[in-house]
Amino acid sequence: MIIVLKPNADEQKYKKLEAFIKGDLGLDIHYSRGEKSTILGLVGDTSKVDIDAVSALDIVESVTRIQEPYKAANRKFHPMDSVITVGDVKIGGGHFAKIAGPCSVETPEQIIGIAKSVKASGAHMLRGGAFKPRTSPYAFQGLGKTGIDYLLEAKKETGLPIVTEIMELTDLDLFADVDVIQVGARNMQNFRLLKELGTTDKPILLKRGLANTVAELLMSAEYIMSGGNEKVILCERGIRTFETSTRNTLDLAVIPVLKEKTHLPVIIDPSHSTGHSRYVKSVSYGATAAGADGLIIEVHNDPENAWSDGQQSITPEAFDEISKGIDKFREVVISL
Amino acid sequence: MIIVLKPNADEQKYKKLEAFIKGDLGLDIHYSRGEKSTILGLVGDTSKVDIDAVSALDIVESVTRIQEPYKAANRKFHPMDSVITVGDVKIGGGHFAKIAGPCSVETPEQIIGIAKSVKASGAHMLRGGAFKPRTSPYAFQGLGKTGIDYLLEAKKETGLPIVTEIMELTDLDLFADVDVIQVGARNMQNFRLLKELGTTDKPILLKRGLANTVAELLMSAEYIMSGGNEKVILCERGIRTFETSTRNTLDLAVIPVLKEKTHLPVIIDPSHSTGHSRYVKSVSYGATAAGADGLIIEVHNDPENAWSDGQQSITPEAFDEISKGIDKFREVVISL
Amino acid sequence: MIIVLKPNADEQKYKKLEAFIKGDLGLDIHYSRGEKSTILGLVGDTSKVDIDAVSALDIVESVTRIQEPYKAANRKFHPMDSVITVGDVKIGGGHFAKIAGPCSVETPEQIIGIAKSVKASGAHMLRGGAFKPRTSPYAFQGLGKTGIDYLLEAKKETGLPIVTEIMELTDLDLFADVDVIQVGARNMQNFRLLKELGTTDKPILLKRGLANTVAELLMSAEYIMSGGNEKVILCERGIRTFETSTRNTLDLAVIPVLKEKTHLPVIIDPSHSTGHSRYVKSVSYGATAAGADGLIIEVHNDPENAWSDGQQSITPEAFDEISKGIDKFREVVISL
Amino acid sequence: MIIVLKPNADEQKYKKLEAFIKGDLGLDIHYSRGEKSTILGLVGDTSKVDIDAVSALDIVESVTRIQEPYKAANRKFHPMDSVITVGDVKIGGGHFAKIAGPCSVETPEQIIGIAKSVKASGAHMLRGGAFKPRTSPYAFQGLGKTGIDYLLEAKKETGLPIVTEIMELTDLDLFADVDVIQVGARNMQNFRLLKELGTTDKPILLKRGLANTVAELLMSAEYIMSGGNEKVILCERGIRTFETSTRNTLDLAVIPVLKEKTHLPVIIDPSHSTGHSRYVKSVSYGATAAGADGLIIEVHNDPENAWSDGQQSITPEAFDEISKGIDKFREVVISL
Repeated sequence: MIIVLKPNADEQKYKKLEAFIKGDLGLDIHYSRGEKSTILGLVGDTSKVDIDAVSALDIVESVTRIQEPYKAANRKFHPMDSVITVGDVKIGGGHFAKIAGPCSVETPEQIIGIAKSVKASGAHMLRGGAFKPRTSPYAFQGLGKTGIDYLLEAKKETGLPIVTEIMELTDLDLFADVDVIQVGARNMQNFRLLKELGTTDKPILLKRGLANTVAELLMSAEYIMSGGNEKVILCERGIRTFETSTRNTLDLAVIPVLKEKTHLPVIIDPSHSTGHSRYVKSVSYGATAAGADGLIIEVHNDPENAWSDGQQSITPEAFDEISKGIDKFREVVISL
Repeated sequence: MIIVLKPNADEQKYKKLEAFIKGDLGLDIHYSRGEKSTILGLVGDTSKVDIDAVSALDIVESVTRIQEPYKAANRKFHPMDSVITVGDVKIGGGHFAKIAGPCSVETPEQIIGIAKSVKASGAHMLRGGAFKPRTSPYAFQGLGKTGIDYLLEAKKETGLPIVTEIMELTDLDLFADVDVIQVGARNMQNFRLLKELGTTDKPILLKRGLANTVAELLMSAEYIMSGGNEKVILCERGIRTFETSTRNTLDLAVIPVLKEKTHLPVIIDPSHSTGHSRYVKSVSYGATAAGADGLIIEVHNDPENAWSDGQQSITPEAFDEISKGIDKFREVVISL
Repeated sequence: MIIVLKPNADEQKYKKLEAFIKGDLGLDIHYSRGEKSTILGLVGDTSKVDIDAVSALDIVESVTRIQEPYKAANRKFHPMDSVITVGDVKIGGGHFAKIAGPCSVETPEQIIGIAKSVKASGAHMLRGGAFKPRTSPYAFQGLGKTGIDYLLEAKKETGLPIVTEIMELTDLDLFADVDVIQVGARNMQNFRLLKELGTTDKPILLKRGLANTVAELLMSAEYIMSGGNEKVILCERGIRTFETSTRNTLDLAVIPVLKEKTHLPVIIDPSHSTGHSRYVKSVSYGATAAGADGLIIEVHNDPENAWSDGQQSITPEAFDEISKGIDKFREVVISL
Repeated sequence: MIIVLKPNADEQKYKKLEAFIKGDLGLDIHYSRGEKSTILGLVGDTSKVDIDAVSALDIVESVTRIQEPYKAANRKFHPMDSVITVGDVKIGGGHFAKIAGPCSVETPEQIIGIAKSVKASGAHMLRGGAFKPRTSPYAFQGLGKTGIDYLLEAKKETGLPIVTEIMELTDLDLFADVDVIQVGARNMQNFRLLKELGTTDKPILLKRGLANTVAELLMSAEYIMSGGNEKVILCERGIRTFETSTRNTLDLAVIPVLKEKTHLPVIIDPSHSTGHSRYVKSVSYGATAAGADGLIIEVHNDPENAWSDGQQSITPEAFDEISKGIDKFREVVISL
């Protein structure tokens, strides 16, 4: 961390800052005094220093972080890829996972039917929403606990581990048999929820928020990991920009950026990011070739009659085709 | 709602859609059939129709909403300004409220001192954070229940109603004596929380999310109001854009836009939107002249030693000056 | 185009609008009159109707475009992929082009050396900047005409067609021997330049502006094409968002979106979009798999001493590796 | 400027960098060597150092600019407000200018009529577009030279100085009698145009681009000023964000931010920023109270029949009312 002091900084305030850095924070300081400005280079573990607090000081011109503010999620301190294990499935470190299923769980027949179908097409896990965050209070809000029960039935029938979203801390008990707990984009900075999930031993699929930076995504992972749960899978699902031809904007470069900054697995959601089923194939192929560790794709047996997000769901037939395509691109990725 | 069908839409699917609109939704249809496309105009209360579901239909080219998807918050159905009463204070409909206080409650002395000071300078309510959403798990997270207790002491001393943020549903009991419950930007789409707040009778200060549209802000207000609690105060605190010279970008036009679309009071947060105390005065004056119903401003007796957000807090002396300036601009607003 | 009139629209104004639509615009109208609103469906070629002008009318509630406002660039009117021919090179319709070279042309040795190297690695065209748009007036602004001369020397030596950027209409004469004229992101809406390029017979590589939508990119292509020059190559190079870990945000979905809306070839610029050479490989692979028709990549023999944009340039060795990888992904694309 | 070197930076490369900084750039270096990293503080005038070139060096971890990259526009080197004089009108340093007129010049009667009307209502200058940048090649593109002639007639009739937009360098001769040359948002980074305008002695009204930062706006001003023309008026007209209820998003804080960073006058365009005439009043008042040096407002005698942008133009009657309101807010601004 580099602190540039204002010209002619008050000596007494400066002494106080120095004492705070050395005493309270336990860091060393490298000094660089010029005619016009004094630069302090802080040496030691600055990941937990509150940059806002330092910036607020009257004598400080600017503060620049050199070290990232996250540790557990940081590849610098954990150079090898993390591999997250879910039942027989692995994600990360060369293991690629296809996660498929409907936006919302509707009926046992629907979810079991889709589960069988996507399994036959090569899916490794089943997704399905039981609790649905909906913009309108008048829209279908999910089956709740019943939805989880149906997912567990589908798991029993197919053996596929299940991924489903938690919306509220008080529901946590209902997720006891769920394999991967998803934190949706709107909850990426629900810090109380993240903290609590950090005390469980379940893999967490953490989606990036619509207005959140890569750095903030990693800080949210850090919330979970600092509680002791290191099984975090990061998921990019598009950010919000001025472009309206797709529901969100899927940043392709986020894959190499995250791979550089963290050891956690990175998966891509082509369905929510584009919002249109007809773009899912192209985006799935692109994300695979760019080096993603997996994809989470919405598949519905009858998209036109889906209870939510039918517009972005593909059919089981389309998933079968895309799944085969993904495998071919993965072969190239592995060969390079 | 206007539905444009694709050319040569399948007749059977069309009949099914027609039956759904007339039967399930109870709406009338106006037909406009051309050579190339058929346009359906839906007549009746379409505010609760799920636009995504209709868009997902194979035969549908596009769907356009004419009627807004919110009713309770909609000025069309409630032309007069809502006035929210908090103790002796009123907001909206010509009543302007100055809300001031520190980012975080720190000690009884701090919060009581600031409360007395801002009251003397004309503040109508006291703000202060007990539960703090912080990006880093290593940053100060607020005093929690103790913070609320200190706020209540400050209220007892000064008579100022208090505004403080709820982060999690399970904490709701702790807010029994709080006057206005704030929902922060990160929780604007925490729908479970919104629903529960809709069953209380407390005024809710609802902040716009960093990536949320005006329409979504109103849908979140609708969540609260559809539960029966119509006491919602909307708060703009800046959205996230590419500009980095301020913490967020404060959309000035949001004031007339919200005033047109809703009858709810609209307040502005110059502190979070700019992130720098030196811009607070100018933004406060601008928001007042543009017609805001109030301002919520961070004031700290010792910004350099604030436990959070010191960079954007102004001193009590600065607040006193700004408060007087606001009053002068309000006089003009009222005179026009 | 659908026009929704306000309730109780003035009869006289309505007659005037009707006359304008039928008379001046030569369109038919389908009427749908309800109790609360009247909907007009405009039938005919509405691509040239000024939506802003209609929206300005006092009696109009809203206007929705069904038909796109571009014709020449529209796939609906030109279902087959356009193939652009540049010397022996083809782009589009299954032909993939690798364009490589330095950000700025510096010396004959530099550009000839890089040209030979990238040709050996499989590049189809040579890029290089002679006129450089730079944010700072104090930064290197390119060699100008001399830069074009050096490019032409490199072309003579290697046979590679050359692509270089025009910044100003008055320079057009200097581009007489250039194979492909590039319009940079900052000039995407320099309409006078676009119009003039529409009167030439040279292929134009049109880059998307940092704040421009897909629809606007296509309108800018339309400017060129409406002048008679249909040889437009679209290039995505990232848009500006709040994310700062890359220079710009590269929207992966733009590839299938553009492929759906237009018949023009679509190429991707991994160098400018990410701004960091270490992300170029991953993005190149992703764009190839997603179906791009080509890539334009910055390659410099000595990135550390490049006169501009060294940070995002890869070495000839890195290009060689990436070029081979691209070929492998292309094989899969073709096989699917 | 602070350069952080990578751990274990190559000694030879380091020596080369050192020689470059001291020799070529003529700067001093302050060293701060730690175990893990070496920090170089560059001392001297770094405003013209190419940050990208330094960042590209293999041994460099990060570069942070302390000093702004603009000098002529920088308030640090020019603490007093600049006052720009246009005929009898002054802008900046306490002088407030109301600029009003139609989007496009249409007929002599129209422009003279509006000029007389807005003058009577207190406007200080007349705006009107002769060359119009339009997204569609099929839309009205302005009267060109004839439009300027009509503006000059209106000037002769009313004495109001005229402001009109230049789109292309080759038209510069046509602007010989124009009082203020406007550079539109799309041309904010048309560097060749800016450079040429820097050699004239005419005041330039420079609009911020839709995707450009405040820092970039100031760099574009620097382009003009570095050529010798210091008469630059900055104009904010909204940036592009995800919000669609207004045409663009008008950043209120840009007023105090620009006032802090530069001595140049700052005016606001409520018409283009909102895109709707009904929001112009509120935004005008807000911008005035926030400390703008002027406003540029679209006024049309018959908005419904305007040849462009009628939706955002207000009537002369509305301008009269708003002009009076602005004066009242200005009185408060001056009194504070």
